Amino acid sequence: MLKTIYYPDPLNWAELCKRPQLDTTNLDTMIAGIFEQVKQKGDIALKEFTLKYEKREVENFLVDKDQLESAGRNLSTELKKAIEIAAENILKFHTIENLQDPVIETMSGVFCWKRKIPIERVGIYIPGGTAPLFSTVLMLALPAKLAGCSEVILCTPAEKNGKVNEAVLFTAKLAGVKTIYSVGGAQAVAAMAIGTETIPKVQKIFGPGNQYVTAAKQFAARSYCAIDLPAGPSEVLVIADESADPGFVAADLLSQAEHGTDSQVILISTSEILVKEVKKSLVQQLFTLPRKTIAQEALQNSHVILLKSLEDAMRFSNLYCPEHLIIATQNADDLSKKVINAGSVFVGHYSPESAGDYASGTNHTLPTSGFAASYSAVSNESFLKIISFQKLTPDGLLGIGKTIELMAEAEKLEAHKEAVSIRMKKLSSKNYGL
Amino acid sequence: MLKTIYYPDPLNWAELCKRPQLDTTNLDTMIAGIFEQVKQKGDIALKEFTLKYEKREVENFLVDKDQLESAGRNLSTELKKAIEIAAENILKFHTIENLQDPVIETMSGVFCWKRKIPIERVGIYIPGGTAPLFSTVLMLALPAKLAGCSEVILCTPAEKNGKVNEAVLFTAKLAGVKTIYSVGGAQAVAAMAIGTETIPKVQKIFGPGNQYVTAAKQFAARSYCAIDLPAGPSEVLVIADESADPGFVAADLLSQAEHGTDSQVILISTSEILVKEVKKSLVQQLFTLPRKTIAQEALQNSHVILLKSLEDAMRFSNLYCPEHLIIATQNADDLSKKVINAGSVFVGHYSPESAGDYASGTNHTLPTSGFAASYSAVSNESFLKIISFQKLTPDGLLGIGKTIELMAEAEKLEAHKEAVSIRMKKLSSKNYGL
Repeated sequence: MLKTIYYPDPLNWAELCKRPQLDTTNLDTMIAGIFEQVKQKGDIALKEFTLKYEKREVENFLVDKDQLESAGRNLSTELKKAIEIAAENILKFHTIENLQDPVIETMSGVFCWKRKIPIERVGIYIPGGTAPLFSTVLMLALPAKLAGCSEVILCTPAEKNGKVNEAVLFTAKLAGVKTIYSVGGAQAVAAMAIGTETIPKVQKIFGPGNQYVTAAKQFAARSYCAIDLPAGPSEVLVIADESADPGFVAADLLSQAEHGTDSQVILISTSEILVKEVKKSLVQQLFTLPRKTIAQEALQNSHVILLKSLEDAMRFSNLYCPEHLIIATQNADDLSKKVINAGSVFVGHYSPESAGDYASGTNHTLPTSGFAASYSAVSNESFLKIISFQKLTPDGLLGIGKTIELMAEAEKLEAHKEAVSIRMKKLSSKNYGL
Repeated sequence: MLKTIYYPDPLNWAELCKRPQLDTTNLDTMIAGIFEQVKQKGDIALKEFTLKYEKREVENFLVDKDQLESAGRNLSTELKKAIEIAAENILKFHTIENLQDPVIETMSGVFCWKRKIPIERVGIYIPGGTAPLFSTVLMLALPAKLAGCSEVILCTPAEKNGKVNEAVLFTAKLAGVKTIYSVGGAQAVAAMAIGTETIPKVQKIFGPGNQYVTAAKQFAARSYCAIDLPAGPSEVLVIADESADPGFVAADLLSQAEHGTDSQVILISTSEILVKEVKKSLVQQLFTLPRKTIAQEALQNSHVILLKSLEDAMRFSNLYCPEHLIIATQNADDLSKKVINAGSVFVGHYSPESAGDYASGTNHTLPTSGFAASYSAVSNESFLKIISFQKLTPDGLLGIGKTIELMAEAEKLEAHKEAVSIRMKKLSSKNYGL
């Protein structure tokens, strides 16, 4: 089921790191059409698309207050408690750094500083589909709350009964979200990007989704608003040596594989014995899973790679840039210091990916498809922007003026120079500070 | 020349904040073609495009070491000193925060931490064209150096004589850039995104450019690598009251208008007298400028807006989200505290935009076209990514295990649950920690 590659030449590593590229040419045209409709017809377009794609007639997308207030009644006390514990851990990890940095006097009389300011209006998309991802509500709405965004809206498709999943509502309420719309798909993203009569235009859109939602977010990012991350299929890379428990490793690989048929799962090992045991355990565990068909298909695209050393394993991982990296080795702590490219790292035998997916406190909205080389996980910072300020005193301007004039002149931007010269002239004529 | 709008109804403000939208439909197809050629033919494609668009035959894109080493010989000592002063100020302002945050124990035995790690390979694009923007080299290469990026490459078109502008080379050398390619346009961006025989593939592309470069960066961002910012035409909004010097305000407006015919310039004032004086001064100053034709055209798309109060002025500015905001009022300090959306803010009568463009220390690579609502200026952080780590002890896993199991079960992700259960079972069978 899982193909094993024995000690590949480093020259071939880059090839092994490649993700399947989706052809989104046709998707783009379709998404552009959806945006155009939403732009022209607003809510009416949303209703038409919901009827077309979800076979659902909607009077009002806004989830009513009573439904939100009462959310949780049908959930077990145990589950509610679990969600609360996860929320607490996430809050503990997502600390806010200083909102205002100290003022720096870069030259005498030239004062510069930065201020972090919350993005005012943000939109969160929570997919419906095969699994109601209420955990993602925690991962996005809590940092938005901590950052202090003044308006947080959430869009999510309704379930078959026409209602939004109760755990999603309960979690949203817990995380302080007050406005929820039961609308899904690319049309929900278009609505948040453009704004309709019902749904306000937001300044940044967060959240995972299928290929339509992802394409819509990328379309929105071109000219409407910011997005959290370019999202692709989820992936894990496990580095395991002979100290690893084959059952644990197999379980970790499967927990990634069950996400979707396009999930990617890679095991790097220095031990042929371990690999044999993991494969055995994989087969045993797979057949007990409700989502075994999905996991099985995902495993088709996945592979096991044997390498000579753990240093090589880490080198490969840094080249692959995994969304999730599990280090299941004896020297996991040391090895973790060599991570250069990864989204979230799970150190040691008792740190399964599920811990970070739900409750350890780290964020599970992570860069995929190799983007871990340059993007970070969602954090409070994702809900803030930083504004620079500068104030020059008259003396400050006189001190730095010549520098600016010379540079502007050399860049042939005479008006830039003049904006300084005119001030310096006035100050000189007053004999100010001279 | 500048249209004045008297006391517009707040209901019409949103309309006044609109930027002209470029139709990039045809551009997209052209850019896709350039990427395809560079992907297939590498350096050969680059040479063909350079011949086609720049009428220049190139043997080797790499600027040779001697040329880089000797850069500056023909520059005045004064200019070199000015560039060095600007570099010092930029270094002082671009301080690096802790690379490793403290480890947080979110629950007993559950340890989480973050580490900031430099992006390994970054590419900087410096436009040629009407002005050699060596100041942008400082704004991008210095933060890259501070962040610790291991490979920084720079692409810039050659001047008419076939050589790269000497001030650009001198500044690059000063900022520690060792690898410079004399290639420009969308093809340079494609080369950095994809990689060719000569030019290495980078993980993030920075820098301004014309509409082709901008479209190429956006194309790259969809599936190749990260980019700094979605770039649009440059813009300034000036808030001025009766305390402002009309000459200063006019000079500031012109320094923005000379950037390009698509630049945007907005003056908000509470004083009709000031507005009249500014317009008078504008005409006088305009006709002395070498770039007056450009500035004049930019002013056609620009406007003056009279509002009843400075609070209204700031409200308008926050709705407009200017790239540059100049606060030329008596109470500039107080008013600056109310800024919610802006790229870089210039506080008081002696803080012209040129100061930040060149030398105050803040970064001049800023969000335009309203993106200041959700994006920050380029900073050291733009050259780093943050990786999350977590380590659970066996006790930690036992403590948090149930929480994860319950949530995974409720999300119908059985394999996620199993990855925890299999570990808990092993620990229980050992009577570990129970």
